Amino acid sequence: MPGPYPFDRLRVVLVAPRNPLNIGAAARAMSNFGFSHLRVVNPYEVAFREARSAVGAGAVLRAAVQYQSLAEAVADCSLVVGTTAAGGRELRHKLWRLPYAARLIRRRLASSPVALLFGSEKFGLSNDDLSHCHWLLRIPTRPEHESMNLGQAVALCLYELARDPDEAAPRAEGKLRAPSGELERLTGLLADLLRESGYINPVTAASTLDKLRRLVRRMDLSARDAEIWLGILRQLRWKQGRV
Amino acid sequence: MPGPYPFDRLRVVLVAPRNPLNIGAAARAMSNFGFSHLRVVNPYEVAFREARSAVGAGAVLRAAVQYQSLAEAVADCSLVVGTTAAGGRELRHKLWRLPYAARLIRRRLASSPVALLFGSEKFGLSNDDLSHCHWLLRIPTRPEHESMNLGQAVALCLYELARDPDEAAPRAEGKLRAPSGELERLTGLLADLLRESGYINPVTAASTLDKLRRLVRRMDLSARDAEIWLGILRQLRWKQGRV
Repeated sequence: MPGPYPFDRLRVVLVAPRNPLNIGAAARAMSNFGFSHLRVVNPYEVAFREARSAVGAGAVLRAAVQYQSLAEAVADCSLVVGTTAAGGRELRHKLWRLPYAARLIRRRLASSPVALLFGSEKFGLSNDDLSHCHWLLRIPTRPEHESMNLGQAVALCLYELARDPDEAAPRAEGKLRAPSGELERLTGLLADLLRESGYINPVTAASTLDKLRRLVRRMDLSARDAEIWLGILRQLRWKQGRV
Repeated sequence: MPGPYPFDRLRVVLVAPRNPLNIGAAARAMSNFGFSHLRVVNPYEVAFREARSAVGAGAVLRAAVQYQSLAEAVADCSLVVGTTAAGGRELRHKLWRLPYAARLIRRRLASSPVALLFGSEKFGLSNDDLSHCHWLLRIPTRPEHESMNLGQAVALCLYELARDPDEAAPRAEGKLRAPSGELERLTGLLADLLRESGYINPVTAASTLDKLRRLVRRMDLSARDAEIWLGILRQLRWKQGRV
């Protein structure tokens, strides 16, 4: 269950959540990205019970721990980060955009536990909750519609933590491209076919061949696709030849 | 409502969604990050009605357009990207991790419409759906728990697209790509031609059409080249018809 070791030091803390679907969605996102410690403070009791007993509730949700106060829930953490949608409300705290905030959190996770706090669906984190935070994190939503769904906000934060900026390089695609000889064969066959069908004007034939060659190169064919196209053109030519 | 201009060119396409809460969550995330064009293909009717009539359903949801087929829903898009949780299932497509995929999508949005496809909650995108895609995008979840909640997956993709406001305005790619409607016409014409020439075995015709669709998407045609190919195929078919 636990992801890379430092991830095991993150505590996702839901403060006073009211909707069992959101609690479930938070737990699912944690599992998706390899985080395992879910803490729930003063949940709406029915919601927490429902979420845990839901079909498909995974290991994260079953292992979730319930706390009576936020202070207890973050007691072992050397860094407590609150999430907020608001741009200006909590001026008493430093406020970082998610991408940068995630860097700071990752750095801290290398050595000690970190709590990431999410407030209730309706009210967010209270001033009292915020007083437990070292700084705040803001997901960069539009000013005109800042407030996010709780499950989605949790997913975004965990995604960013797991995103690994150094790994932006794409996976090697690995497909063998068609060799030029094959492309040339394809070009020739296409030219024959088009000449016989009347598509190519004999007067401008030379420049047309040139254009066909470019056309075929632009297809950027894999070796396998080049074979398929050769088969297609041969069949068409065979059929045409029977006129 | 619309975000920065290029964002206005993105079409978020939900294929056969079944849960009104997910449709609503997708629309909400779109609004959070400044995207406005939601398209829904063959939704479970009750779900779509419920989502639209929900209290607080915003402008995105009210403006959502319903389509009977995926082909129609992506007809104006020059790039169609499918989202998948699977690491290895669809080896017939290029597969990029979200951070890099978002870069490619942003670049294309600078010049033309792009469709981002999300499959149904239960089954994801079907093979037929995938045959309309140019390539696939993978959210880097853990192999042990790959499958994400639909609303969360939409939020992550849009967040990544909007993530870096400091990034210089994306450079438009050199050449305008062919819209999907044009590629679909090309596929149909090629299929007709091959059927009449005997290349297509009537028994396996359906899966062959699927393969042809992928073959044509892999050509990555510019709008201009698509026209040339349409001309070529029409001529071949005319000639073949005279047998």
